[in-house]
Amino acid sequence: MKNTLLVCLFLVSSVASAQVQTTNLKINQQRIQDRLLELSKIGALPNGGVGRVGYSKADQEGRAYFMGLMKKAGLVVTVDYAGNIIGRRKGKNPALKPIAFGSHIDSVPNGGNYDGPVGSISGLELIETLNENNIITEHPLELIIFANEEGGTIGSGAIIGKITPLALKSVTQSGLTIADGIRAIGGNPDSLSKVVRKKGDLTAFIELHIEQGGILMTENLQIGVVEGIVGIEHWDVTIEGAANHAGTTPMNSRRDALLAAAKLIVALNEVVTSHEGRQVGTVGKIAIEPGAYNVIPGKVVLGIEIRDLSYDKIWKLFHEVEGKAQEIAKTSETTITFEKSGVPVTPALTAKPIQDKIIGAAKSLGLSYRYMQSGAGHDSQEMAQIAPVGMIFIPSVGGISHSPKEFSKGVDIGHGANVLLQTMLAIDRN
Amino acid sequence: MKNTLLVCLFLVSSVASAQVQTTNLKINQQRIQDRLLELSKIGALPNGGVGRVGYSKADQEGRAYFMGLMKKAGLVVTVDYAGNIIGRRKGKNPALKPIAFGSHIDSVPNGGNYDGPVGSISGLELIETLNENNIITEHPLELIIFANEEGGTIGSGAIIGKITPLALKSVTQSGLTIADGIRAIGGNPDSLSKVVRKKGDLTAFIELHIEQGGILMTENLQIGVVEGIVGIEHWDVTIEGAANHAGTTPMNSRRDALLAAAKLIVALNEVVTSHEGRQVGTVGKIAIEPGAYNVIPGKVVLGIEIRDLSYDKIWKLFHEVEGKAQEIAKTSETTITFEKSGVPVTPALTAKPIQDKIIGAAKSLGLSYRYMQSGAGHDSQEMAQIAPVGMIFIPSVGGISHSPKEFSKGVDIGHGANVLLQTMLAIDRN
Repeated sequence: MKNTLLVCLFLVSSVASAQVQTTNLKINQQRIQDRLLELSKIGALPNGGVGRVGYSKADQEGRAYFMGLMKKAGLVVTVDYAGNIIGRRKGKNPALKPIAFGSHIDSVPNGGNYDGPVGSISGLELIETLNENNIITEHPLELIIFANEEGGTIGSGAIIGKITPLALKSVTQSGLTIADGIRAIGGNPDSLSKVVRKKGDLTAFIELHIEQGGILMTENLQIGVVEGIVGIEHWDVTIEGAANHAGTTPMNSRRDALLAAAKLIVALNEVVTSHEGRQVGTVGKIAIEPGAYNVIPGKVVLGIEIRDLSYDKIWKLFHEVEGKAQEIAKTSETTITFEKSGVPVTPALTAKPIQDKIIGAAKSLGLSYRYMQSGAGHDSQEMAQIAPVGMIFIPSVGGISHSPKEFSKGVDIGHGANVLLQTMLAIDRN
Repeated sequence: MKNTLLVCLFLVSSVASAQVQTTNLKINQQRIQDRLLELSKIGALPNGGVGRVGYSKADQEGRAYFMGLMKKAGLVVTVDYAGNIIGRRKGKNPALKPIAFGSHIDSVPNGGNYDGPVGSISGLELIETLNENNIITEHPLELIIFANEEGGTIGSGAIIGKITPLALKSVTQSGLTIADGIRAIGGNPDSLSKVVRKKGDLTAFIELHIEQGGILMTENLQIGVVEGIVGIEHWDVTIEGAANHAGTTPMNSRRDALLAAAKLIVALNEVVTSHEGRQVGTVGKIAIEPGAYNVIPGKVVLGIEIRDLSYDKIWKLFHEVEGKAQEIAKTSETTITFEKSGVPVTPALTAKPIQDKIIGAAKSLGLSYRYMQSGAGHDSQEMAQIAPVGMIFIPSVGGISHSPKEFSKGVDIGHGANVLLQTMLAIDRN
């Protein structure tokens, strides 16, 4: 009895001391920066950027480097059939569903080393911080490094079961099809059904990421509490007029497809900016026929997209643009037709309780913050289909991303990693 | 004495009867149409159009066919060093400088069979009509079929001495350089100086041509009296903004090069249409970088042109567009720079006395007419540098040219050829 009591007292004391410890726990910012630097050498480009596109040799090398670090940190590392790297750490209570966090380490072709690596390396840093402080969480933990995020969130898409056999055949930036790419990183495209997770399989998923926009920097804030990740719709717009001699066709007899397209580009901008909110609308593509100084353009094709947290709003804005297009078509004697293009991205809302925990963590760390939306797509967008999701942003210098100029300051990365750690611990305490 | 008197009386009577005859003289419309049909078979395209680009095999074949007809019509045919086909017919008074007329028989790559051939075949028809009526004009006559008009009025350019050694090296639609093309049609690019004609070497040059626009057809008129051929200036306009993520960059933080370009396209149209006159301004080219749905365009290059009969007006309009561009650059935080491109085409005015004779001819034939300008370039534009020039337009169905759909009605071509004939005869009588 005496012995037993002593043991019990010891256990109680140990738990109490661990809890005190965890709210003060801090990650090692220098270690994150060192590892970012190491990773940036893999696929480094002469222009200072990084080319580590999903499934490429550089991606494979980066993954090998990262798995080595994960194993050294004591994680049980597996590669699932979609090529996602999953590092598991046991919790005290095996009945609880894991808390997952992570990001990706693949890049766009001429990208930087912060979009993805910041969340991945900070996730690993959490594990090391727990290790160094001998902390075992209640929940099992999973650090997930998703495969080929930049190629269309393929790894996380597989986890929610949305990668179709047709999609597997499409060719990626690596030159490989998605199917062959998955094979190249140790997965098996024929067994993707086995990687699908159900709703409730995870307690939460949390992702730390660079903002990729300039809001936090402009407002001099340290943490972005992401309310949701916007939905995206693309359309191809075809404007048909009449190609004709630019010298012999009087101004009032023209059916100039480019002039009509120009008015539509301006109209789209006016529609999108005339409403309250953070929606964005962009004309990013234009093709013209025949394309000579001395020929009035007969045909123009525009590529447009609209993004918002609300799918209804995307369509409301689109219908307004469509209305303007019909007015322009009438006055310019052109025809304007819209065709939906690509796979729409559904807006994904993050979980309010996790938002609250991110805010709690930021406050306890004395960091400034604001709510914001993510204009870019992320693995969290897919994961939101099966788990409560939280997403933390840190400032991007100059708002630049997908560029060799992409940069986030070490101190900001450190703040983000500490918020990630405290948010995870707060979920664990729940 | 008696005999002499009789002879004199006969001569007077012959002149008087010839003059009566010539004002009633009519061309043979059917023969023109038959020859247009014959010529259209040379270089015929499966789509119904004609591909007889200057210096090509089809062009060479067309020229051989045409020279055959010219010789049959009794013309003394030579090919000058620039490849121009010149058919000479003696006049009664060898001291007079020739009256020249003609056009070209080469085409754009995917063109029709009216732009050029109408004036060329009608010119030949004049000779045949004179032959059939045993009429010898006072002036010597020259039927000129200019080489490679569609490639930049090369043949007529050589006659006025403007083809530079550098230009000779440029590659034409035929695949040959201009120098090699000239050789291919029997000219000699090293002797171009010998084809140059001086001011005063010709009494006049007259060209019958399809309008290539829709004004005559729209207004249901039969003859266009060309006052001049417009000058042309081209500019490349570079709009530089900042390429950025279309999802993460708020609308009010964008430096969207395409939005600025769209505003400039609209502004150019507004500037050109806000002034009285027949000036035209066109944006016929657009190139964009990087050109993806999800990237705000960072750079756009436009190709613009302005045409007018007055060079001063072209530049006045341009400076107004430039002013608008600077306003747009300021509000959109882009930079907009203009660079002149290509060789400017100087406006060319036709000779008022010849305009009057064209109108006289139209009136005497009971044809409706209007003054107009030529928005397209023509060999007449070059010839105006060395001779008084007249230009006659006939309706283009639908205003279409440089297309397999290019078409002019036989009856309109007949009217044009009769006006050409009567104008030439009126000049000859002067």
